[in-house]
Amino acid sequence: MTKKILILPGDGIGPEVMGEVERIIDWFNKERGLGAETERDLVGGCAYDAHGQAVSDATMAKAQEADAVLLGAVGGPKWDGVPFDVRPEAGLLRLRKDLELFANLRPALCFPALADASSLKRELVEGLDIMIVRELTGGVYFGEPRGIEDLPNGERRGFDTQVYSTHEVQRIGRVAFDLARKRGNRVTSVEKRNVMHSGVFWHEEMVKLHKAEFSDVTLDHMLADNCGMQLVKQPKQFDVIVTDNLFGDMLSDVAAMLTGSLGMLPSASLGGKDANGKAKALYEPVHGSAPDIAGQGLANPLATILSFAMALRYTFDLSADADLLEKAAETVLAEGYRTGDIMQPGMKKVGTKQMGDAVLAALTKL
Amino acid sequence: MTKKILILPGDGIGPEVMGEVERIIDWFNKERGLGAETERDLVGGCAYDAHGQAVSDATMAKAQEADAVLLGAVGGPKWDGVPFDVRPEAGLLRLRKDLELFANLRPALCFPALADASSLKRELVEGLDIMIVRELTGGVYFGEPRGIEDLPNGERRGFDTQVYSTHEVQRIGRVAFDLARKRGNRVTSVEKRNVMHSGVFWHEEMVKLHKAEFSDVTLDHMLADNCGMQLVKQPKQFDVIVTDNLFGDMLSDVAAMLTGSLGMLPSASLGGKDANGKAKALYEPVHGSAPDIAGQGLANPLATILSFAMALRYTFDLSADADLLEKAAETVLAEGYRTGDIMQPGMKKVGTKQMGDAVLAALTKL
Ligand SMILES: CC(C)[C@H](C(=O)O)[C@@H](O)C(=O)O
Ligand SMILES: CC(C)[C@H](C(=O)O)[C@@H](O)C(=O)O
Repeated sequence: MTKKILILPGDGIGPEVMGEVERIIDWFNKERGLGAETERDLVGGCAYDAHGQAVSDATMAKAQEADAVLLGAVGGPKWDGVPFDVRPEAGLLRLRKDLELFANLRPALCFPALADASSLKRELVEGLDIMIVRELTGGVYFGEPRGIEDLPNGERRGFDTQVYSTHEVQRIGRVAFDLARKRGNRVTSVEKRNVMHSGVFWHEEMVKLHKAEFSDVTLDHMLADNCGMQLVKQPKQFDVIVTDNLFGDMLSDVAAMLTGSLGMLPSASLGGKDANGKAKALYEPVHGSAPDIAGQGLANPLATILSFAMALRYTFDLSADADLLEKAAETVLAEGYRTGDIMQPGMKKVGTKQMGDAVLAALTKL
Repeated sequence: MTKKILILPGDGIGPEVMGEVERIIDWFNKERGLGAETERDLVGGCAYDAHGQAVSDATMAKAQEADAVLLGAVGGPKWDGVPFDVRPEAGLLRLRKDLELFANLRPALCFPALADASSLKRELVEGLDIMIVRELTGGVYFGEPRGIEDLPNGERRGFDTQVYSTHEVQRIGRVAFDLARKRGNRVTSVEKRNVMHSGVFWHEEMVKLHKAEFSDVTLDHMLADNCGMQLVKQPKQFDVIVTDNLFGDMLSDVAAMLTGSLGMLPSASLGGKDANGKAKALYEPVHGSAPDIAGQGLANPLATILSFAMALRYTFDLSADADLLEKAAETVLAEGYRTGDIMQPGMKKVGTKQMGDAVLAALTKL
């Protein structure tokens, strides 16, 4: 059966880095019999420019059909003034919500060759390997009621609702515990139960789930503010972190920056399995659309390439191919290839396309 | 007129570190004619143990009367099981809310003598001086409705409301802009306007306020996740950061940990001025109650001592005295005195009381 991959490059550097991924997909089709068929479409600011919406219904239909969606990045100052419900981010949020991609996996890995690029001292990040499991379709990102309204006294108020229900906490908890079993067998559940009722609830449900189904895994709890601190102080203390949409947004960005490898970090957003055991999935780099360097052939394609490796692993169950691609990315780093964002003295500075060439060469050699 | 200071040592190391502050207040009374009268009372877990509430009405009445409240820290594992509304943190939150202490000032300073204690590379934090202005009486900490409820389908849901109104954003904005004028003249306003309606609202109101009253100050805007990243990447890019209650909680903790000086960082929580130009105020260290070392005479009293320095500056308008006390704290560090939390090879390891002695000696010498 043909594997259908929908490619949504998005804005800024998205199209450039995705170009390299397409070449890599071709390589896997030819050399490893992947059998993938790709199609490009629009999301984000470019979709708004084309048809006034951050993602069209037609594109959503294709996303529903696809085995996997690969996304570049959305947004940029060009769209700062567009209305809230059609801003570039709305496209990404609709994809997450409509495909029910509730589990966002964000590995924070420190690539050995890049340990010195971290702002943290080398010994604190060398070998770092955290998996942040972020809830992605609930919480304050989507809770109702929300809006901005006029008050009788002439003032206005802006409001959002932070909310989680039982099955939402359970299903993201299961993803975290399952992953932990294949890793260090430890989960840290993060909330603000000393302040928020949703935090008390999250904590209670995690404790119950752990007791009922995963008592072989070690479960710790940490307040979100303390987790931010501990990530900076001693990041290697963590194995799997599971947390809500908003805390996950912030903590995964802090963790990503710690590694010094931001331009290298992929992510996977996964839905629940359907009757055929198939889960919807979207893969995207952690970095943004970098409008300042867009269109210049300077962007680092490795995070997007590694996002495709996650697709090989999680959607297509091809872990040998995923390993191969990850190994190729490590090889080019070891060979000294660097895009501007990760450039270090004595290394070979290359652009987007040359980095893609280097990965293809490494794949062929490995 | 006598200056009334209410001392609420709280739990864990609170009583020990506050003991040193009391000796320092005595010194300022004797040597600098401060004229302060202090009284001790309970807040947090110890208040719950004594009368079943995290802060009693009688204590609240004293806090309302006081010119300044000095607080140690609240909480600890001992009270993990107590009901939500009487947990130790509820005492602190009631103090903030009932005294209307809407402006939480959290300096993130890197003390030169401690730059090597940071997990960040020295050059990134040396000389760091950020002021985080956190909104403290609104947002998801207090928004209604909130709670945990049963759903018709047998599930439960936990929910909180994130909400800000015009005057809340304006008054915290004014504090930030006013402070910026006395510092680097730059304010970074932080929200998630790409996701949250309260973020769109916060951004709009900040822009209006800036235009109307503070156009001489430079105003930037940053998304909260990016701010977390930028703090790790290049903390010195910031002057004043203004943000909401929850983002401020997390970002100020990340910033504090960056400095390597967590045991050194004070904070001030200020209310609006009354008809006599007097503002209610509470001062507390950024660190917590550290139950693991409580009662052993090991805790670092400097953050609490420096919180009293902020009281001298902001409540009593005694900036020369505040400068003197801050200088004394720097002197003891330069002389090599270190409690366990900031100990470095070759320094003199001391306990809580000896650190207090050293500060008193430095005050006398300066
Ligand atoms: C672009 C934005 C809506 C998004 C988010 O806040 O989730 C991004 O920051 C992320 O982390 O994927
Ligand atoms: C103790 C807790 C309620 C408090 C908060 O979340 O505000 C603390 O973390 C702080 O930052 O002062």
